Amino acid sequence: MRIAILIFDRLTALDAVGPYEVLSRLPGAELSFIATEPGLQRTDVGSLGVHADLALTELPDPDVVVVPGGKGSRPLMSDPDVLGWLRTAHQGSTWTTSVCTGALVLGAAGILDGKRATTHWAYLERLRELGAEPVAERVVEDGKVITAAGVSAGIDMALQLAARISGEDVAHAIQLGIEYDPAPPFDSGSPSKASPRAIELVRAAEGGESG
Amino acid sequence: MRIAILIFDRLTALDAVGPYEVLSRLPGAELSFIATEPGLQRTDVGSLGVHADLALTELPDPDVVVVPGGKGSRPLMSDPDVLGWLRTAHQGSTWTTSVCTGALVLGAAGILDGKRATTHWAYLERLRELGAEPVAERVVEDGKVITAAGVSAGIDMALQLAARISGEDVAHAIQLGIEYDPAPPFDSGSPSKASPRAIELVRAAEGGESG
Repeated sequence: MRIAILIFDRLTALDAVGPYEVLSRLPGAELSFIATEPGLQRTDVGSLGVHADLALTELPDPDVVVVPGGKGSRPLMSDPDVLGWLRTAHQGSTWTTSVCTGALVLGAAGILDGKRATTHWAYLERLRELGAEPVAERVVEDGKVITAAGVSAGIDMALQLAARISGEDVAHAIQLGIEYDPAPPFDSGSPSKASPRAIELVRAAEGGESG
Repeated sequence: MRIAILIFDRLTALDAVGPYEVLSRLPGAELSFIATEPGLQRTDVGSLGVHADLALTELPDPDVVVVPGGKGSRPLMSDPDVLGWLRTAHQGSTWTTSVCTGALVLGAAGILDGKRATTHWAYLERLRELGAEPVAERVVEDGKVITAAGVSAGIDMALQLAARISGEDVAHAIQLGIEYDPAPPFDSGSPSKASPRAIELVRAAEGGESG
């Protein structure tokens, strides 16, 4: 089973690495980081370089597509090479997925047309402009398309996908292997729970471009 | 504030990237991925290359040290360059931290002597051989040393550390920015909750070397 995680300059690292840590542990997984051109891609704060081993043209037909988000996902929304690859890959894929603002790239490729979908909370309404029905849930599955909310939600999405692909026993073992028994020290992880001050800090610090 | 995340071949990616995603968002953070020699390090399943920008000798005195785990952490336990760097860095650090089996490397450097500490559940008893008091908690703080349980626990650890460094308002905003409102689809993330079958699968599939 060939899994392609699309990476690009200024991606959000955890968007890609959360699903990677889960999906790379699936039996028979052949996971590749893929980009327009192979080589080092820098994450949004620049201090982490992640290497793409394959060019898009080298893997036109993955079984599973994962599109992470980050500031660098915005230029992809009008990048003909990326959108063309996504459309072709989606035609033959078993699962097409996104994390955070990766959903906006799926939307720009027309993949979310008429579908229920989610993305980082700060970008949810943008999905509507792209033809999708925005849903404020952590993981949204509509047919073979699964979209996850912001950044860390990719871990939850990938565990759900792992169960779809290899069954719940395997998904449970992966969850145990990565000791995913989350215990956040605070309860500020969604706009419905966070203080107005935290919401303001996120919007101010990241200029609405947090995902 | 200089934050050094130690990386090495066959690290577990999420051990490093979970804390990275939190700590890189701290005001004034200068975060570096650091290794014995700069260049590409491969993660434990090999399909992800992460780039070290600095050699250990280039940053002997970080304010915050993060040591992730993974199969490749075991050789570090007898690597004089790494242990020497760690001992020196720890002397001057404000915080010295680990995720997963990164704790075994701290232990080998003598940093956990007499301290309460944690690591991946499958390795907890090894901490005793290294002079520490093993504690089956997700995040354990003892003085300036903070250790986290397996893989995904690094996110919780880093949020706790973010609050210590920059205050709770900032930590709350970071949690909201990465939308860390976890909702695992299963409840199999710790050995106290997982089925015997899942525990057996982890031990068998990973040969006791899951972290």
